[in-house]
Amino acid sequence: MLVQQTVAGFIAELSSDSPAPGGGSVAALSGALGASLVGMVCRLTIGNAKYAAADVAMRGALVKVDELKDTLTRLIDKDTAVFNQVMAAYRLPKTTDAEKTNRSEVIQLALKEAAALPLSVAEHCLALLELSKQALVNGNANASSDAAVAGAMAHAGLAAALYNVRINAMSIKDEEFAVALQKSAKSLKSRADSMYKELEAAADVKIG
Amino acid sequence: MLVQQTVAGFIAELSSDSPAPGGGSVAALSGALGASLVGMVCRLTIGNAKYAAADVAMRGALVKVDELKDTLTRLIDKDTAVFNQVMAAYRLPKTTDAEKTNRSEVIQLALKEAAALPLSVAEHCLALLELSKQALVNGNANASSDAAVAGAMAHAGLAAALYNVRINAMSIKDEEFAVALQKSAKSLKSRADSMYKELEAAADVKIG
Repeated sequence: MLVQQTVAGFIAELSSDSPAPGGGSVAALSGALGASLVGMVCRLTIGNAKYAAADVAMRGALVKVDELKDTLTRLIDKDTAVFNQVMAAYRLPKTTDAEKTNRSEVIQLALKEAAALPLSVAEHCLALLELSKQALVNGNANASSDAAVAGAMAHAGLAAALYNVRINAMSIKDEEFAVALQKSAKSLKSRADSMYKELEAAADVKIG
Repeated sequence: MLVQQTVAGFIAELSSDSPAPGGGSVAALSGALGASLVGMVCRLTIGNAKYAAADVAMRGALVKVDELKDTLTRLIDKDTAVFNQVMAAYRLPKTTDAEKTNRSEVIQLALKEAAALPLSVAEHCLALLELSKQALVNGNANASSDAAVAGAMAHAGLAAALYNVRINAMSIKDEEFAVALQKSAKSLKSRADSMYKELEAAADVKIG
């Protein structure tokens, strides 16, 4: 499993000439890092008398980000697994007509899975971006840079995931499916961009 | 060392209620992940006859990103080390006047180091962002999403690093030093934002 490698080992494997792991797993990792930071900010806020007014909200946020952290961590390996399925499908035999038909069908199924997975990463990152903003505004001020960094990682994780949605969508022949993907990607990106602008403005207030 | 922990272990430690590691180390990690992806794209391009025209440029880029990857990986641990120095300085005794003066001086020195380090992370990320764009435009088209993801990680790493510059600058009493930091941060951010817009436009052409 990728997440059982050391950080240095993962970095080394990523930079090698093997196409996997690649940007899809990095997108999920970016989200997992952001979720961890929001978790830290919540933990540094909960129970602190100075932030008593935010206690209930921070406890609720913590449950959500811990779940996002676990989900996004799982998706680091899952993304590489579905990418490998696409590669394996392209290597299927294509001599006879039956083989060609089968290969094409298997490729198309694998591509749909390889596009759907980063779309869910992007959705999780959008939820995380909202929680990062809440942690920045209501959380422990000593950790406000951590909450802002979490927002940057959520925003980047979302953008990164959507590049993977789009590159897979390019080879999907089911036009309706591909168009729906592109539409979802566009909508998520535009919501994330404006949410990140709000987070940047909140950071200007908190961090100066 | 943080980079000798497993990815899953690093994520768990990050989300704990201990302030370190925090957003500063994540900023450097984000850059290291981006540099690794550009390295992969270069390796998947170099020696490929289809990209012969880009061969020399990709070889030059590879040397640079491999160096950036190593530097940014080192800075993951280094950032947590300088952060811990700041924490240690705040714990110094402050009973006598001499102790107070000494503590304040040590804090100020530690804060300057803790602000200078993420500033250098941001500078490395800006260089990486330019190389990500080159890899996206000239590199193997099969890996264009990886180059675009690298750009997203470089851009986020830079923004994340600058939040850490700014939060440390807030407590630095040497006004000239603090103002210079803020000015550098602003300039880096604005250059990175316009460079990332160019990368996004290049991705729209390549990825559709």
